[in-house]
Amino acid sequence: MSRGPAKQFDPQEALDQAVDVFWARGYESASLAELLQAMKIGRKSLYDTFGSKHDLFQAAMARYAETQFATIHQILTADRRPLANIRALLRHWEKDSAQPNSKGCLFGNNMPGFGPVDAATSEQIFGYVKQVEDAICSTLRAARQNGELNPAVQPREAARMIVCLSQGMALLSRVSGETSAFQAPVAAVLRLLEA
Amino acid sequence: MSRGPAKQFDPQEALDQAVDVFWARGYESASLAELLQAMKIGRKSLYDTFGSKHDLFQAAMARYAETQFATIHQILTADRRPLANIRALLRHWEKDSAQPNSKGCLFGNNMPGFGPVDAATSEQIFGYVKQVEDAICSTLRAARQNGELNPAVQPREAARMIVCLSQGMALLSRVSGETSAFQAPVAAVLRLLEA
Repeated sequence: MSRGPAKQFDPQEALDQAVDVFWARGYESASLAELLQAMKIGRKSLYDTFGSKHDLFQAAMARYAETQFATIHQILTADRRPLANIRALLRHWEKDSAQPNSKGCLFGNNMPGFGPVDAATSEQIFGYVKQVEDAICSTLRAARQNGELNPAVQPREAARMIVCLSQGMALLSRVSGETSAFQAPVAAVLRLLEA
Repeated sequence: MSRGPAKQFDPQEALDQAVDVFWARGYESASLAELLQAMKIGRKSLYDTFGSKHDLFQAAMARYAETQFATIHQILTADRRPLANIRALLRHWEKDSAQPNSKGCLFGNNMPGFGPVDAATSEQIFGYVKQVEDAICSTLRAARQNGELNPAVQPREAARMIVCLSQGMALLSRVSGETSAFQAPVAAVLRLLEA
């Protein structure tokens, strides 16, 4: 079966560009024209390689998750005590959210739009977030076994609290315009985990 | 000066309908047709009474803030100990976020869209959020004076943490589909404030 001429573009690079557009603009606001321009491909190549706009968004979410999870995994498994790894992750998010033109989180930015309109995609987005929660929960459990944790902290509860907090910080980073806006909430949660 | 015939609609009621549309759909996605249909008015009445779509959004934000702040104020000044008022506010948000078709927060839902695109509106949105933070901070200070608070809690830091957490919960409520999704983070933060 003929597979046609070789592709004139790198699908991985094109996908990374699509990730950036969906991240900054959101699924619904990102027009096909914007996507094609950023990806530097034509409409036919888009459909042939990625399928529909919604298929492209699915691929973009998977790609974004892969990148973010790699960073999170690296931070949470670094050669430090478990609570120091949690601290490093929170400081990483604090730094990210303090960028002057922070894009926030691709998942968070798209939660309002999918909401109850598209339950399948919403469930998928929540699934990605829960993977982050699981990684945090495991690390908090290790910290508890090490005796590093405030005894009042319950790892599963605290993991969801940290996930909600990080989503709130990423969201507020879209409008805060204060580079120091997230030092306080991160300091507060660290103080309480360690107390 | 002639003021023309009396208005055939109640501007306050029409504005409340606009609040609901912007809340569920977001500023950019809400079309003029949707707004007019929900507000049960014509295009000319909209422009004559509220100005542009952006003016209408400003009025909708002010109206939404007024309603939300009234509820928050009522909860935080109820005849209970200060920390019990904080607990009641967090439980109120938890209950709100657990609604099956939770709309989340009008401000939060619109943060991704305004982001760096419209700095003036972003600043306005952040300003509303900071008013909530101030109210929480005052209540935490009162709780500290009462000796109810974990001594490790710093009211200003913790107030921003609670605001970020509540925004994260409202955001995640758009996709979680779990009515119990926010019991854990609220339990975690209350446990730590009281510890």
